[in-house]
Amino acid sequence: MFYSAETILPQLHQKLPKGSFRPATKAYLEEPRGRFESAGGVVLAPSSVEEMSTLLSICHAASVPVIPYAGGTGLVGGQIGGNDLPPPVIVSMERMTTIRSIDTLGNTLTVEAGVILEHAQDAAQSAGRLFPLILASQGSARIGGLLATNAGGVNVLRYGNARDLCLGIEVVLADGTVLQSLKGLRKNNMGYDLRHLLIGSEGTLGVITAATLRLFQRPTSESAAFFVVSDPSAALDLLHLAQNVLGEAITAFELISGVGLAFLQEVGPDVTFPFEQIPDWMVLIDVGFMGQIDAQQAMVQFFEVAFETGLVQDGVLSQSESQRTAFWTLREAIPEANRRIGSVSSHDISLPLGALSEFIAQGPKQLSQIGEFRINCFGHLGDGNLHWNVFPLPGRTRADHENQRLDIKRCVHDLVNALGGSVAAEHGVGRLKVEDLERYEDPGKRNAMRAIKHALDPKGILNPGAVLRL
Amino acid sequence: MFYSAETILPQLHQKLPKGSFRPATKAYLEEPRGRFESAGGVVLAPSSVEEMSTLLSICHAASVPVIPYAGGTGLVGGQIGGNDLPPPVIVSMERMTTIRSIDTLGNTLTVEAGVILEHAQDAAQSAGRLFPLILASQGSARIGGLLATNAGGVNVLRYGNARDLCLGIEVVLADGTVLQSLKGLRKNNMGYDLRHLLIGSEGTLGVITAATLRLFQRPTSESAAFFVVSDPSAALDLLHLAQNVLGEAITAFELISGVGLAFLQEVGPDVTFPFEQIPDWMVLIDVGFMGQIDAQQAMVQFFEVAFETGLVQDGVLSQSESQRTAFWTLREAIPEANRRIGSVSSHDISLPLGALSEFIAQGPKQLSQIGEFRINCFGHLGDGNLHWNVFPLPGRTRADHENQRLDIKRCVHDLVNALGGSVAAEHGVGRLKVEDLERYEDPGKRNAMRAIKHALDPKGILNPGAVLRL
Repeated sequence: MFYSAETILPQLHQKLPKGSFRPATKAYLEEPRGRFESAGGVVLAPSSVEEMSTLLSICHAASVPVIPYAGGTGLVGGQIGGNDLPPPVIVSMERMTTIRSIDTLGNTLTVEAGVILEHAQDAAQSAGRLFPLILASQGSARIGGLLATNAGGVNVLRYGNARDLCLGIEVVLADGTVLQSLKGLRKNNMGYDLRHLLIGSEGTLGVITAATLRLFQRPTSESAAFFVVSDPSAALDLLHLAQNVLGEAITAFELISGVGLAFLQEVGPDVTFPFEQIPDWMVLIDVGFMGQIDAQQAMVQFFEVAFETGLVQDGVLSQSESQRTAFWTLREAIPEANRRIGSVSSHDISLPLGALSEFIAQGPKQLSQIGEFRINCFGHLGDGNLHWNVFPLPGRTRADHENQRLDIKRCVHDLVNALGGSVAAEHGVGRLKVEDLERYEDPGKRNAMRAIKHALDPKGILNPGAVLRL
Repeated sequence: MFYSAETILPQLHQKLPKGSFRPATKAYLEEPRGRFESAGGVVLAPSSVEEMSTLLSICHAASVPVIPYAGGTGLVGGQIGGNDLPPPVIVSMERMTTIRSIDTLGNTLTVEAGVILEHAQDAAQSAGRLFPLILASQGSARIGGLLATNAGGVNVLRYGNARDLCLGIEVVLADGTVLQSLKGLRKNNMGYDLRHLLIGSEGTLGVITAATLRLFQRPTSESAAFFVVSDPSAALDLLHLAQNVLGEAITAFELISGVGLAFLQEVGPDVTFPFEQIPDWMVLIDVGFMGQIDAQQAMVQFFEVAFETGLVQDGVLSQSESQRTAFWTLREAIPEANRRIGSVSSHDISLPLGALSEFIAQGPKQLSQIGEFRINCFGHLGDGNLHWNVFPLPGRTRADHENQRLDIKRCVHDLVNALGGSVAAEHGVGRLKVEDLERYEDPGKRNAMRAIKHALDPKGILNPGAVLRL
């Protein structure tokens, strides 16, 4: 049983400074694509872990739901309270933006949860270090949200997911208890690893207020290349070859389909195309070396080897840093082209690498039993993570297929599950995939999740309805 | 309230095959160094996850304590039930030794929890891959125990701790519930990460029965070197330089003190010394490259750079694989020399790299207020993980200092804690460090740990007294 945020307004005004209160503007209440919206709520932006603790203890005592809100860039509705709740307290991280410390010897960066990813990257760069979490929304996504959702991005192959880049967290639990675990140690076995439990729990177990992040030495020589391959299976063989030849220097290994390039030609954004003819499939490889090794030269050598084996039909290698940037601009423009076309259904999935080709072959066949579609398949091949998006044929729109959307989703997700994959790869569960979690996840795991949720948040006030059904 | 394993003997005999019962020999009841022992118990070795589930559900229903036992090589008493318990069921993993599958495309290895680490390494090698968890007890330590304790070892710098090498687990919870999470995916955000919660929980939240492990490409060219440095601070500067010059190719970066070498001279084992005179400090660096790069040549270049900067006074570079092995034989002989001398107190600690030199300088000073000792400081410098062991002066023995042991421990651990370090770096908490956890760990975290323990194991039957006080 939840109560409205309005029931605790007097206490909130008494215990929290005036500057904490924010108008409940649209940003806090609507998901960017308009797929989730909430009727209202009281928006508060605490400026310290102490204020966060006060705020949550008041909400906990009064059974008022709390929706943590960081950058608002999530794609599964985790940041927007549902309409089945009374108006919640929306806790924005926007005032917790302090970079607390940077340690270039231990290679750690300690930041508050409201720090925008790009600012964390900049702070690392200013100190001659790299914070390697790279993703499209980095200009607005905040560290707290990125950790709460265990964000992925393009560099997971080399550096891991957000959880792998975090050595310590400071968290406020549902009842206001502060959990201080910010030590930036590489080895620390003092009790249960609550850090990893909180990371990826999407604000349902606690609110992360600060984190100690891992930094890396910056590669001294970087290079990128587009290689044309005949199909995804060849792309996987190429990945394997690249791992043998280039080793851990491979930062990203992205699959791009001809459909994605055709979309860019059709609706923009306007980008430079690497090949005169649009290939059916290509990969974008990015490498970064330390020390004396010249990345461009290494890439040339790799291209020669790959071309000789017949795995690669053509290639364009970046000749400068600006050309490398242009290659990535093309890659990052694909989601925007997708938005302009308007997908019927989009899927953030991952598969065992051995099942990837089968999925890419089987998916369209199974979908053709529902209707005629165009599929744009792209993503982080090195991690088995595909963004597999279903579009209407030219001349038709998303609205024409409204009644097929559930069938499409079910068809795609059933196939992913049958092949041993995940239907929530890097975007999380949020409110969008609660049913998928129930359908596909191990019942033993789901029961244990519920038990843990109840243990840490007995009244269920934290982000109710996200991840676990109300 | 616990009951003796004898109260459920009839049920166990009825529900489990005869081959599951094992004699309760000394190995199951005594820690190798004799520091922990248990009065008795019933030893069972299930051969499948189903049998494990049956076993735990019987114990759970009857409130009989369960002590999970893998390789028995733990150094903190986590594998030995205390004498404050009625005779427990000791669950040995020795019959769950199947290598279930190996996937060279996805680079994963799925094994049962009783597989011995060396066998997992061999299976990976046979498939042309590397499983990079390397530690002294690998000939007897089992995967289940290594994950339950989140083992470290010498390669953490490059490949991470045991938890970083595990993509999925199969676990039986206290009441017999099976949790199937063996997907070998790099990106999977389907709900809470229970894998990392179970890993490192030392058998107190569930019994791991199988795991999907990460494999890596094998380096094609490897090399090792001993470098003489003036002090630990110079060793840290050298690490930094190495990271810039050699990048991710650095597999291990070990600190060795002259005291350790003097111990080897004094009591053996007999090993080849790299330098005529024993230096005060030296480091052992190991590198492995992919592709065309010659590791030995890269190491020569690195030595030249390091020597020019003045960070390194002398060096011996391995000229062959057998010499590289000999270098590591020296490193691995140090713990044996320590055992022969007999430590008064030994410490598995980690520190922020920036505090390491201060600890190494301050530690002996503070200890001198308690008495006169020899200190052998060695360990995994790249991870900030030291094995800092306190020995009697020549002519005296461990027994002469018996009454000072608690003071020594307190003195060392207080200093580590004050400097932001951990007093349980890679060996875990077990029964040895329960008080340390209470003294040094954040109270918010300890309360949350207790809540989670109660949620997943409400009767507290799993490894009672380990990690959390009874």
